[in-house]
Amino acid sequence: MLTLTTFRSVPEFAIGYVRDLRVRWALEEAGLPYTVRALEFQEAATPAYRREQPFSQIPVLRDGDLTLFESGAILLHLGEQHPALMPTDAAARARVTAWMFAALNSVEPYLANLVNLEVFCAGEPWTAGARPAAEAMVHKRLRDLDDWLDGRQWLEDDFSVADILMTSVLRLVDSMKMVEGYPRVTAYRDRCMARPAFRKALADQVAHFTREPVAA
Amino acid sequence: MLTLTTFRSVPEFAIGYVRDLRVRWALEEAGLPYTVRALEFQEAATPAYRREQPFSQIPVLRDGDLTLFESGAILLHLGEQHPALMPTDAAARARVTAWMFAALNSVEPYLANLVNLEVFCAGEPWTAGARPAAEAMVHKRLRDLDDWLDGRQWLEDDFSVADILMTSVLRLVDSMKMVEGYPRVTAYRDRCMARPAFRKALADQVAHFTREPVAA
Repeated sequence: MLTLTTFRSVPEFAIGYVRDLRVRWALEEAGLPYTVRALEFQEAATPAYRREQPFSQIPVLRDGDLTLFESGAILLHLGEQHPALMPTDAAARARVTAWMFAALNSVEPYLANLVNLEVFCAGEPWTAGARPAAEAMVHKRLRDLDDWLDGRQWLEDDFSVADILMTSVLRLVDSMKMVEGYPRVTAYRDRCMARPAFRKALADQVAHFTREPVAA
Repeated sequence: MLTLTTFRSVPEFAIGYVRDLRVRWALEEAGLPYTVRALEFQEAATPAYRREQPFSQIPVLRDGDLTLFESGAILLHLGEQHPALMPTDAAARARVTAWMFAALNSVEPYLANLVNLEVFCAGEPWTAGARPAAEAMVHKRLRDLDDWLDGRQWLEDDFSVADILMTSVLRLVDSMKMVEGYPRVTAYRDRCMARPAFRKALADQVAHFTREPVAA
Protein backbone atom coordinates (compact mmCIF):
# COMPACT_ATOMS: atom_id res chain seq x y z
CA MET A 1 0.00 0.00 0.00
CA LEU A 2 1.63 3.23 -1.20
CA THR A 3 0.59 6.65 0.10
CA LEU A 4 2.00 9.83 -1.40
CA THR A 5 1.90 13.00 0.69
CA THR A 6 1.64 16.35 -1.05
CA PHE A 7 0.08 19.68 -0.13
CA ARG A 8 -3.67 20.17 -0.34
CA SER A 9 -3.19 23.38 -2.31
CA VAL A 10 -0.38 25.48 -3.78
CA PRO A 11 -0.22 28.87 -5.50
CA GLU A 12 -1.53 28.64 -9.05
CA PHE A 13 1.87 29.17 -10.72
CA ALA A 14 3.21 26.03 -9.02
CA ILE A 15 0.55 23.67 -10.34
CA GLY A 16 2.17 21.18 -12.71
CA TYR A 17 5.56 21.70 -11.02
CA VAL A 18 5.06 20.50 -7.43
CA ARG A 19 7.57 17.86 -6.37
CA ASP A 20 5.02 15.11 -5.91
CA LEU A 21 4.95 15.01 -9.74
CA ARG A 22 8.22 13.10 -10.04
CA VAL A 23 6.95 10.45 -7.64
CA ARG A 24 3.58 10.21 -9.43
CA TRP A 25 5.50 9.83 -12.71
CA ALA A 26 7.65 6.99 -11.37
CA LEU A 27 4.60 5.25 -9.92
CA GLU A 28 2.86 5.47 -13.31
CA GLU A 29 5.91 4.12 -15.14
CA ALA A 30 5.94 1.14 -12.77
CA GLY A 31 2.18 0.70 -12.92
CA LEU A 32 1.82 1.03 -9.15
CA PRO A 33 -1.47 2.22 -7.66
CA TYR A 34 -1.27 4.75 -4.80
CA THR A 35 -3.38 7.00 -2.67
CA VAL A 36 -2.73 10.69 -2.01
CA ARG A 37 -2.63 12.26 1.43
CA ALA A 38 -3.27 16.02 1.23
CA LEU A 39 -1.36 18.10 3.77
CA GLU A 40 -2.53 21.55 4.81
CA PHE A 41 0.34 24.02 4.38
CA GLN A 42 0.31 24.85 8.12
CA GLU A 43 0.64 21.17 9.03
CA ALA A 44 4.07 20.99 7.40
CA ALA A 45 5.67 22.84 10.32
CA THR A 46 4.14 20.66 13.06
CA PRO A 47 6.37 18.35 15.11
CA ALA A 48 4.29 15.37 13.94
CA TYR A 49 4.96 16.07 10.26
CA ARG A 50 8.59 16.98 10.86
CA ARG A 51 9.14 13.50 12.22
CA GLU A 52 8.21 12.35 8.71
CA GLN A 53 9.87 15.23 6.85
CA PRO A 54 12.43 17.11 8.97
CA PHE A 55 12.49 20.10 6.59
CA SER A 56 8.69 20.55 6.30
CA GLN A 57 8.77 19.70 2.62
CA ILE A 58 6.81 17.35 0.38
CA PRO A 59 6.72 14.65 -1.00
CA VAL A 60 6.73 11.86 1.53
CA LEU A 61 6.01 8.28 0.49
CA ARG A 62 4.68 5.64 2.84
CA ASP A 63 5.30 2.09 1.68
CA GLY A 64 3.95 -0.23 4.35
CA ASP A 65 5.96 0.48 7.50
CA LEU A 66 8.54 2.60 5.71
CA THR A 67 8.16 6.39 5.66
CA LEU A 68 10.52 7.98 3.19
CA PHE A 69 11.33 11.62 2.38
CA GLU A 70 13.42 13.26 -0.38
CA SER A 71 12.18 12.62 -3.89
CA GLY A 72 15.58 11.23 -4.88
CA ALA A 73 15.42 8.57 -2.16
CA ILE A 74 11.80 7.77 -2.98
CA LEU A 75 12.64 7.24 -6.65
CA LEU A 76 15.65 5.12 -5.74
CA HIS A 77 13.48 2.98 -3.46
CA LEU A 78 10.91 2.45 -6.20
CA GLY A 79 13.61 1.93 -8.82
CA GLU A 80 15.24 -0.85 -6.83
CA GLN A 81 12.03 -2.84 -7.03
CA HIS A 82 10.84 -2.13 -10.57
CA PRO A 83 12.88 -2.83 -13.71
CA ALA A 84 10.79 -0.24 -15.59
CA LEU A 85 12.54 2.37 -13.41
CA MET A 86 16.10 1.06 -13.08
CA PRO A 87 18.19 -1.70 -14.65
CA THR A 88 18.76 -4.81 -12.54
CA ASP A 89 22.48 -5.11 -13.33
CA ALA A 90 24.49 -3.63 -10.41
CA ALA A 91 26.92 -1.58 -12.52
CA ALA A 92 24.16 -0.18 -14.74
CA ARG A 93 22.20 0.67 -11.61
CA ALA A 94 25.17 2.51 -10.10
CA ARG A 95 25.43 4.57 -13.30
CA VAL A 96 21.77 5.52 -12.95
CA THR A 97 22.36 6.69 -9.37
CA ALA A 98 25.22 8.88 -10.63
CA TRP A 99 22.74 10.70 -12.87
CA MET A 100 20.17 10.91 -10.08
CA PHE A 101 22.67 12.72 -7.88
CA ALA A 102 23.89 14.76 -10.84
CA ALA A 103 20.35 16.01 -11.53
CA LEU A 104 19.81 16.98 -7.89
CA ASN A 105 23.27 18.21 -6.91
CA SER A 106 25.13 19.28 -10.08
CA VAL A 107 22.25 20.68 -12.14
CA GLU A 108 19.27 21.65 -9.96
CA PRO A 109 21.01 24.04 -7.54
CA TYR A 110 22.07 26.31 -10.41
CA LEU A 111 18.68 26.28 -12.11
CA ALA A 112 16.91 26.82 -8.78
CA ASN A 113 19.21 29.73 -7.99
CA LEU A 114 18.27 31.44 -11.25
CA VAL A 115 14.57 30.80 -10.64
CA ASN A 116 15.01 32.34 -7.21
CA LEU A 117 16.47 35.50 -8.77
CA GLU A 118 13.97 35.70 -11.62
CA VAL A 119 10.77 34.69 -9.88
CA PHE A 120 10.98 34.83 -6.10
CA CYS A 121 13.25 37.90 -5.89
CA ALA A 122 11.90 39.61 -9.04
CA GLY A 123 12.12 43.37 -8.72
CA GLU A 124 14.72 43.39 -5.95
CA PRO A 125 17.46 45.76 -7.13
CA TRP A 126 20.39 43.46 -6.29
CA THR A 127 19.27 40.69 -8.66
CA ALA A 128 20.66 42.54 -11.70
CA GLY A 129 24.15 42.17 -10.25
CA ALA A 130 23.68 38.53 -9.37
CA ARG A 131 22.22 37.46 -12.67
CA PRO A 132 25.20 37.22 -15.07
CA ALA A 133 27.14 34.65 -13.03
CA ALA A 134 23.98 32.71 -12.18
CA GLU A 135 23.01 32.53 -15.86
CA ALA A 136 26.51 31.53 -16.91
CA MET A 137 26.45 28.53 -14.55
CA VAL A 138 23.09 27.39 -15.92
CA HIS A 139 24.41 27.65 -19.47
CA LYS A 140 27.53 25.69 -18.51
CA ARG A 141 25.47 22.83 -17.08
CA LEU A 142 23.06 22.79 -20.03
CA ARG A 143 25.97 22.76 -22.49
CA ASP A 144 27.62 19.86 -20.64
CA LEU A 145 24.35 17.97 -20.65
CA ASP A 146 23.82 18.72 -24.33
CA ASP A 147 27.23 17.23 -25.10
CA TRP A 148 26.49 14.12 -23.03
CA LEU A 149 23.22 13.56 -24.88
CA ASP A 150 24.96 13.43 -28.27
CA GLY A 151 23.85 10.10 -29.73
CA ARG A 152 21.82 9.17 -26.65
CA GLN A 153 18.09 8.81 -26.13
CA TRP A 154 18.27 8.74 -22.32
CA LEU A 155 20.99 9.59 -19.79
CA GLU A 156 22.03 5.93 -19.73
CA ASP A 157 21.01 3.04 -22.01
CA ASP A 158 17.41 2.73 -20.85
CA PHE A 159 14.87 5.19 -19.54
CA SER A 160 15.16 5.34 -15.73
CA VAL A 161 14.35 7.35 -12.61
CA ALA A 162 17.40 9.47 -13.47
CA ASP A 163 15.53 10.73 -16.55
CA ILE A 164 12.51 11.50 -14.37
CA LEU A 165 14.66 13.60 -12.03
CA MET A 166 16.60 15.35 -14.81
CA THR A 167 13.43 16.24 -16.72
CA SER A 168 11.83 17.52 -13.51
CA VAL A 169 14.88 19.70 -12.90
CA LEU A 170 14.98 21.02 -16.48
CA ARG A 171 11.31 22.02 -16.22
CA LEU A 172 12.24 24.49 -13.44
CA VAL A 173 13.36 26.99 -16.07
CA ASP A 174 10.43 26.43 -18.46
CA SER A 175 9.35 30.05 -18.27
CA MET A 176 12.83 31.32 -19.17
CA LYS A 177 13.18 29.31 -22.38
CA MET A 178 16.83 28.57 -21.60
CA VAL A 179 16.76 24.86 -22.37
CA GLU A 180 15.53 25.73 -25.87
CA GLY A 181 19.05 26.97 -26.75
CA TYR A 182 20.29 23.37 -26.44
CA PRO A 183 18.73 21.19 -29.15
CA ARG A 184 19.69 17.82 -27.69
CA VAL A 185 18.55 18.77 -24.20
CA THR A 186 15.28 20.12 -25.61
CA ALA A 187 14.63 16.96 -27.63
CA TYR A 188 15.52 14.81 -24.63
CA ARG A 189 13.22 16.72 -22.26
CA ASP A 190 10.38 16.59 -24.79
CA ARG A 191 10.97 12.85 -25.35
CA CYS A 192 10.68 12.27 -21.60
CA MET A 193 7.59 14.46 -21.32
CA ALA A 194 5.91 12.65 -24.22
CA ARG A 195 5.80 9.42 -22.20
CA PRO A 196 2.25 8.40 -21.28
CA ALA A 197 3.28 8.03 -17.62
CA PHE A 198 4.37 11.67 -17.49
CA ARG A 199 1.16 12.88 -19.14
CA LYS A 200 -0.93 10.86 -16.70
CA ALA A 201 1.06 12.04 -13.65
CA LEU A 202 0.83 15.67 -14.78
CA ALA A 203 -2.92 15.43 -15.38
CA ASP A 204 -3.36 13.85 -11.94
CA GLN A 205 -1.38 16.61 -10.22
CA VAL A 206 -3.30 19.33 -12.02
CA ALA A 207 -6.60 17.64 -11.10
CA HIS A 208 -5.51 17.34 -7.47
CA PHE A 209 -4.67 21.01 -7.12
CA THR A 210 -7.46 22.51 -9.21
CA ARG A 211 -10.15 20.43 -7.48
CA GLU A 212 -9.14 22.18 -4.25
CA PRO A 213 -9.28 25.88 -3.42
CA VAL A 214 -6.02 27.55 -4.40
CA ALA A 215 -3.95 29.22 -1.66
CA ALA A 216 -4.01 33.01 -1.64
CA MET B 1 41.02 -2.32 -7.37
CA LEU B 2 39.73 1.15 -6.47
CA THR B 3 41.07 4.33 -8.05
CA LEU B 4 39.98 7.74 -6.83
CA THR B 5 40.40 10.69 -9.19
CA THR B 6 40.99 14.15 -7.75
CA PHE B 7 42.85 17.21 -8.94
CA ARG B 8 46.64 17.36 -8.74
CA SER B 9 46.46 20.75 -7.08
CA VAL B 10 43.88 23.23 -5.81
CA PRO B 11 44.04 26.76 -4.39
CA GLU B 12 45.34 26.71 -0.82
CA PHE B 13 42.01 27.70 0.79
CA ALA B 14 40.37 24.57 -0.65
CA ILE B 15 42.81 22.10 0.89
CA GLY B 16 40.96 19.98 3.44
CA TYR B 17 37.64 20.68 1.73
CA VAL B 18 38.02 19.14 -1.75
CA ARG B 19 35.26 16.67 -2.57
CA ASP B 20 37.50 13.66 -2.80
CA LEU B 21 37.58 13.88 1.03
CA ARG B 22 34.14 12.34 1.49
CA VAL B 23 35.15 9.37 -0.68
CA ARG B 24 38.47 8.96 1.15
CA TRP B 25 36.55 9.04 4.43
CA ALA B 26 34.13 6.32 3.32
CA LEU B 27 36.99 4.18 2.04
CA GLU B 28 38.76 4.52 5.41
CA GLU B 29 35.60 3.63 7.33
CA ALA B 30 35.27 0.49 5.22
CA GLY B 31 38.99 -0.30 5.42
CA LEU B 32 39.34 -0.33 1.64
CA PRO B 33 42.73 0.39 0.06
CA TYR B 34 42.75 2.67 -3.00
CA THR B 35 45.06 4.52 -5.30
CA VAL B 36 44.78 8.18 -6.29
CA ARG B 37 44.82 9.45 -9.86
CA ALA B 38 45.81 13.14 -9.99
CA LEU B 39 44.11 15.17 -12.69
CA GLU B 40 45.58 18.39 -14.01
CA PHE B 41 43.00 21.15 -13.82
CA GLN B 42 43.09 21.64 -17.60
CA GLU B 43 42.40 17.94 -18.21
CA ALA B 44 38.98 18.25 -16.57
CA ALA B 45 37.56 19.99 -19.64
CA THR B 46 38.86 17.46 -22.18
CA PRO B 47 36.40 15.22 -24.04
CA ALA B 48 38.18 12.15 -22.61
CA TYR B 49 37.61 13.22 -19.00
CA ARG B 50 34.08 14.43 -19.70
CA ARG B 51 33.18 10.90 -20.77
CA GLU B 52 34.03 9.99 -17.16
CA GLN B 53 32.65 13.15 -15.54
CA PRO B 54 30.27 15.09 -17.84
CA PHE B 55 30.52 18.27 -15.73
CA SER B 56 34.34 18.35 -15.47
CA GLN B 57 34.21 17.83 -11.71
CA ILE B 58 35.93 15.51 -9.26
CA PRO B 59 35.76 12.96 -7.66
CA VAL B 60 35.48 9.96 -9.95
CA LEU B 61 35.85 6.43 -8.60
CA ARG B 62 36.90 3.49 -10.72
CA ASP B 63 35.94 0.13 -9.26
CA GLY B 64 37.05 -2.53 -11.72
CA ASP B 65 35.11 -1.90 -14.93
CA LEU B 66 32.75 0.60 -13.33
CA THR B 67 33.50 4.32 -13.60
CA LEU B 68 31.32 6.35 -11.28
CA PHE B 69 30.88 10.11 -10.78
CA GLU B 70 28.96 12.17 -8.18
CA SER B 71 30.15 11.72 -4.63
CA GLY B 72 26.62 10.74 -3.55
CA ALA B 73 26.52 7.87 -6.03
CA ILE B 74 30.05 6.80 -5.12
CA LEU B 75 29.17 6.66 -1.42
CA LEU B 76 25.97 4.77 -2.16
CA HIS B 77 27.92 2.25 -4.25
CA LEU B 78 30.44 1.71 -1.46
CA GLY B 79 27.70 1.68 1.17
CA GLU B 80 25.80 -1.09 -0.57
CA GLN B 81 28.82 -3.35 -0.19
CA HIS B 82 30.07 -2.47 3.29
CA PRO B 83 27.98 -2.70 6.48
CA ALA B 84 30.33 -0.17 8.13
CA LEU B 85 28.84 2.39 5.73
CA MET B 86 25.17 1.41 5.50
CA PRO B 87 22.83 -0.98 7.28
CA THR B 88 21.96 -4.19 5.44
CA ASP B 89 18.22 -4.06 6.23
CA ALA B 90 16.35 -2.65 3.21
CA ALA B 91 14.14 -0.20 5.11
CA ALA B 92 17.03 1.11 7.22
CA ARG B 93 19.05 1.50 4.05
CA ALA B 94 16.27 3.48 2.37
CA ARG B 95 16.21 5.83 5.37
CA VAL B 96 19.96 6.38 4.96
CA THR B 97 19.47 7.28 1.30
CA ALA B 98 16.83 9.85 2.35
CA TRP B 99 19.49 11.60 4.44
CA MET B 100 22.06 11.33 1.66
CA PHE B 101 19.73 13.16 -0.71
CA ALA B 102 18.73 15.57 2.07
CA ALA B 103 22.37 16.52 2.65
CA LEU B 104 22.98 17.12 -1.05
CA ASN B 105 19.66 18.59 -2.16
CA SER B 106 17.93 20.11 0.91
CA VAL B 107 20.94 21.40 2.84
CA GLU B 108 23.99 21.86 0.60
CA PRO B 109 22.47 24.20 -2.02
CA TYR B 110 21.66 26.81 0.65
CA LEU B 111 25.04 26.59 2.35
CA ALA B 112 26.82 26.67 -1.01
CA ASN B 113 24.80 29.70 -2.05
CA LEU B 114 25.93 31.60 1.04
CA VAL B 115 29.55 30.56 0.51
CA ASN B 116 29.22 31.82 -3.04
CA LEU B 117 28.09 35.23 -1.77
CA GLU B 118 30.61 35.44 1.07
CA VAL B 119 33.68 33.98 -0.57
CA PHE B 120 33.46 33.81 -4.34
CA CYS B 121 31.52 37.06 -4.84
CA ALA B 122 33.03 38.89 -1.84
CA GLY B 123 33.17 42.62 -2.50
CA GLU B 124 30.58 42.66 -5.25
CA PRO B 125 28.07 45.37 -4.31
CA TRP B 126 24.93 43.28 -4.96
CA THR B 127 25.80 40.64 -2.35
CA ALA B 128 24.59 42.87 0.53
CA GLY B 129 21.08 42.72 -0.92
CA ALA B 130 21.21 38.98 -1.48
CA ARG B 131 22.56 38.07 1.93
CA PRO B 132 19.58 38.32 4.32
CA ALA B 133 17.40 35.78 2.48
CA ALA B 134 20.37 33.49 1.84
CA GLU B 135 21.33 33.54 5.52
CA ALA B 136 17.75 32.97 6.63
CA MET B 137 17.52 29.78 4.54
CA VAL B 138 20.76 28.45 6.03
CA HIS B 139 19.48 29.14 9.54
CA LYS B 140 16.19 27.42 8.74
CA ARG B 141 17.96 24.27 7.57
CA LEU B 142 20.36 24.24 10.52
CA ARG B 143 17.46 24.70 12.96
CA ASP B 144 15.55 21.83 11.35
CA LEU B 145 18.62 19.63 11.55
CA ASP B 146 19.23 20.65 15.16
CA ASP B 147 15.69 19.56 16.03
CA TRP B 148 16.13 16.23 14.24
CA LEU B 149 19.33 15.53 16.14
CA ASP B 150 17.60 15.86 19.52
CA GLY B 151 18.39 12.57 21.26
CA ARG B 152 20.31 11.18 18.28
CA GLN B 153 23.97 10.42 17.81
CA TRP B 154 23.78 10.04 14.04
CA LEU B 155 21.15 10.92 11.42
CA GLU B 156 19.75 7.39 11.68
CA ASP B 157 20.50 4.63 14.19
CA ASP B 158 24.03 3.86 13.07
CA PHE B 159 26.81 5.96 11.58
CA SER B 160 26.53 5.80 7.77
CA VAL B 161 27.50 7.44 4.49
CA ALA B 162 24.67 9.92 5.15
CA ASP B 163 26.68 11.26 8.11
CA ILE B 164 29.75 11.54 5.90
CA LEU B 165 27.80 13.61 3.38
CA MET B 166 26.06 15.78 5.99
CA THR B 167 29.31 16.53 7.82
CA SER B 168 31.01 17.37 4.53
CA VAL B 169 28.18 19.75 3.71
CA LEU B 170 28.22 21.40 7.17
CA ARG B 171 31.97 22.02 6.83
CA LEU B 172 31.27 24.29 3.85
CA VAL B 173 30.41 27.13 6.24
CA ASP B 174 33.28 26.49 8.69
CA SER B 175 34.70 29.97 8.19
CA MET B 176 31.36 31.63 8.96
CA LYS B 177 30.84 29.95 12.35
CA MET B 178 27.13 29.51 11.61
CA VAL B 179 26.85 25.89 12.70
CA GLU B 180 28.16 26.95 16.10
CA GLY B 181 24.80 28.58 16.85
CA TYR B 182 23.19 25.11 16.88
CA PRO B 183 24.55 23.03 19.75
CA ARG B 184 23.25 19.64 18.59
CA VAL B 185 24.48 20.18 15.03
CA THR B 186 27.85 21.33 16.34
CA ALA B 187 28.22 18.31 18.63
CA TYR B 188 27.10 15.99 15.81
CA ARG B 189 29.56 17.46 13.32
CA ASP B 190 32.39 17.27 15.85
CA ARG B 191 31.46 13.66 16.73
CA CYS B 192 31.68 12.74 13.05
CA MET B 193 34.95 14.58 12.58
CA ALA B 194 36.47 12.88 15.63
CA ARG B 195 36.26 9.49 13.91
CA PRO B 196 39.69 8.06 13.09
CA ALA B 197 38.62 7.46 9.48
CA PHE B 198 37.88 11.17 9.03
CA ARG B 199 41.21 12.21 10.58
CA LYS B 200 43.09 9.79 8.31
CA ALA B 201 41.19 10.89 5.19
CA LEU B 202 41.77 14.55 5.99
CA ALA B 203 45.48 13.99 6.61
CA ASP B 204 45.75 12.10 3.33
CA GLN B 205 44.03 14.87 1.39
CA VAL B 206 46.23 17.54 2.96
CA ALA B 207 49.34 15.47 2.19
CA HIS B 208 48.21 14.96 -1.40
CA PHE B 209 47.74 18.66 -2.06
CA THR B 210 50.68 20.03 -0.11
CA ARG B 211 53.15 17.58 -1.63
CA GLU B 212 52.34 19.17 -4.98
CA PRO B 213 52.83 22.76 -6.11
CA VAL B 214 49.77 24.81 -5.22
CA ALA B 215 47.86 26.49 -8.07
CA ALA B 216 48.26 30.24 -8.36
